[in-house]
Amino acid sequence: MKLLVMSVAVILAALNPPAPQARAAEQFAPAASNVPGAPTPGIHPDRSITFTLKAPEAPSVQVAGGDGLGKGPFLMTKDAEGLWSVTTPPAVPGFHYYWFILHGVSVNDPSSETFFGYGKETSGIEVPEPDATFYAINNVPHGEVRATWYLSKTTGEWRRALVYTPPDYDKHPKTRYPVLILQHGSGENETGWTRQGRAQFILDNLIAAGKARPMIVVMDRGYATTAGTPAAQVGPAAWQQNLQLAFSTFEDVVIHDLIPTIDSSYRTIPDREHRAMAGLSMGGMQTLFITLHHLDLFAYIGSLSGPMIPGAVAQRGAGSPQRDQFDTRTAYEGAFSDPSAFNTRVKLLWLGIGTAEPENFRASIGGATAALRAAGVRVVYFESNGTAHEWQTWRRGLNDFAPRLFR
Amino acid sequence: MKLLVMSVAVILAALNPPAPQARAAEQFAPAASNVPGAPTPGIHPDRSITFTLKAPEAPSVQVAGGDGLGKGPFLMTKDAEGLWSVTTPPAVPGFHYYWFILHGVSVNDPSSETFFGYGKETSGIEVPEPDATFYAINNVPHGEVRATWYLSKTTGEWRRALVYTPPDYDKHPKTRYPVLILQHGSGENETGWTRQGRAQFILDNLIAAGKARPMIVVMDRGYATTAGTPAAQVGPAAWQQNLQLAFSTFEDVVIHDLIPTIDSSYRTIPDREHRAMAGLSMGGMQTLFITLHHLDLFAYIGSLSGPMIPGAVAQRGAGSPQRDQFDTRTAYEGAFSDPSAFNTRVKLLWLGIGTAEPENFRASIGGATAALRAAGVRVVYFESNGTAHEWQTWRRGLNDFAPRLFR
Repeated sequence: MKLLVMSVAVILAALNPPAPQARAAEQFAPAASNVPGAPTPGIHPDRSITFTLKAPEAPSVQVAGGDGLGKGPFLMTKDAEGLWSVTTPPAVPGFHYYWFILHGVSVNDPSSETFFGYGKETSGIEVPEPDATFYAINNVPHGEVRATWYLSKTTGEWRRALVYTPPDYDKHPKTRYPVLILQHGSGENETGWTRQGRAQFILDNLIAAGKARPMIVVMDRGYATTAGTPAAQVGPAAWQQNLQLAFSTFEDVVIHDLIPTIDSSYRTIPDREHRAMAGLSMGGMQTLFITLHHLDLFAYIGSLSGPMIPGAVAQRGAGSPQRDQFDTRTAYEGAFSDPSAFNTRVKLLWLGIGTAEPENFRASIGGATAALRAAGVRVVYFESNGTAHEWQTWRRGLNDFAPRLFR
Repeated sequence: MKLLVMSVAVILAALNPPAPQARAAEQFAPAASNVPGAPTPGIHPDRSITFTLKAPEAPSVQVAGGDGLGKGPFLMTKDAEGLWSVTTPPAVPGFHYYWFILHGVSVNDPSSETFFGYGKETSGIEVPEPDATFYAINNVPHGEVRATWYLSKTTGEWRRALVYTPPDYDKHPKTRYPVLILQHGSGENETGWTRQGRAQFILDNLIAAGKARPMIVVMDRGYATTAGTPAAQVGPAAWQQNLQLAFSTFEDVVIHDLIPTIDSSYRTIPDREHRAMAGLSMGGMQTLFITLHHLDLFAYIGSLSGPMIPGAVAQRGAGSPQRDQFDTRTAYEGAFSDPSAFNTRVKLLWLGIGTAEPENFRASIGGATAALRAAGVRVVYFESNGTAHEWQTWRRGLNDFAPRLFR
């Protein structure tokens, strides 16, 4: 019996949060992204952050992360019990990936939830923004986030999509809804928009306030390889070919597999006037690549921090690349060549960026916006103040974009 | 423009799988639990496993993991490029947690998906079982796994539950379904049964074969603390108190928050004849603790590898503990004291265990089964051959348990 009692004690140990560290007295609060009970990472009132890692044998430990954390690496120091710690400078509000560097190896923080980024599970920290409730889980009706599996004819594999259904979707079995396809960035996956992005809570809050129309949001994994296709090569010389290869297979998935699956599985309004697509970074590039080639299927288009593909690059198999400018007459196979017709057909072309993003991203998106407007194309241009190529930019972007849909 | 081209190249880099390691020639296949494109961990035909970690500066690296991996730690060796590797002995089929040990710190494998276990995100490896298709994603109709949020009056917090709805749930808006509440083990959370356990595919396959009745499966986070309650203390002396504290708050969540939420949000058949509860390990202990106290709400009960709580331990606030035996007259507040009445009222009492589990777990569950049967209580007892206190035991258990429900 004693053995059993001990086993039960072990089982119960996980019910209890770890004992607070001594430095909890310094008045930081555990990040909302910590695993339950973990006192660090802890966020101070000025948004500086204390990170800790127990590693008595390590010769050195550093912490590094996304732009909004100040990137680092920040050197940590070890106390007598072998607990390494550092308090980093005040962070930008929002979600930031981070990692420890232990003898040259980037490792996760066992105290943090992980989030798929950089092509792997990565620690992340949620830094509160004062008075920002638009992505909080508020006391309003909530939709569901549904994992659904479908067989892709394009890739020959079972794929998983995540589908947000608005509050009371099941309570109104005759009601049909418009659809937004919403894509993650490079190195992320279909979980990004609901875990890092909190898209479901942004939609819940917008819908509860009457600011957005109830809609279905579909999030898929933005990678696809046709069976038998060799992996694309990487490098500036090959990038046009890569775009074609990587994006056009995903295009086939979206057009031939995903949209028919969603339209047959959910109560959608299956026409172009009730179908939007948006994405962030790579997902924004994919959105423009796919929607501008299928304006018969989409009337609403959003690209969050997605560099514009200039000139001939998006011209499938045609001509010589014009890489030095965004030419509204030729870009995206001439989709913008008749601005008046484009404005009539496309209800919304929305381009967004954070003011702290890299200059080349800002130049690409800002320059394309200016060129499109000069040519007479109607563009909504959104800037997120003070945020970088990170999720706070995209949360704010979705919060601006979604209310403009299906009006 | 060159800067943008380079940025796009960086974005595209994540589209491409890493180059295969030299040892790919040794003919192992990447585990299904790897992140996309990662060649290791790799599984050999004899189920030995090659693990690798790039860590040129590290003085030593080890890998360790669950019972079915042989636990370890296994010493790794470094090649000229700084790649550490080891091939471990043939593993037991199924899902096993694992981790690298780097300078005394347990860290995740960047090549692996992570799974919530041991109270944190942990690497895991899926080792195929020959000819076992019951948890595979087969070409059959698939249900959904829905994340749903609800406000718990008991804890004062928003909680997330995962809800499996059977195939075509939305296509038959008049049909109502029975409900199974299915709980994870200690250190895990509400994601365990669908990620590690593949419960949704087990149900899909059973339903497609006509072996199980279509049902809703609800998976919640098995931890709950009433606002203001101090964290439970751990240790054999305090374990009875801990059980009461930890389990009874979760009991309140299940009875007063979760069941009403599910019955109002989904098309359930909201009576005891159509409500089951089961769980693994700690979740099995919670299942018995809760269901036997609420036989007005549950007619089907399953405990997978859940030690029985002997004698007076489950007697709320009464008498002196009897820790040395499972007394069918007094256990669980006398729920078994009238075997005939119990057999009439409870349609299924199912207890399962793996033959490779620790002796004390087997003694507890096997002993209780023998005692209950001797007293005349009807018990279905299930053994998973050759598997330990790991997920393959619980997948097999669910595959045996679910077909017996709601008949």
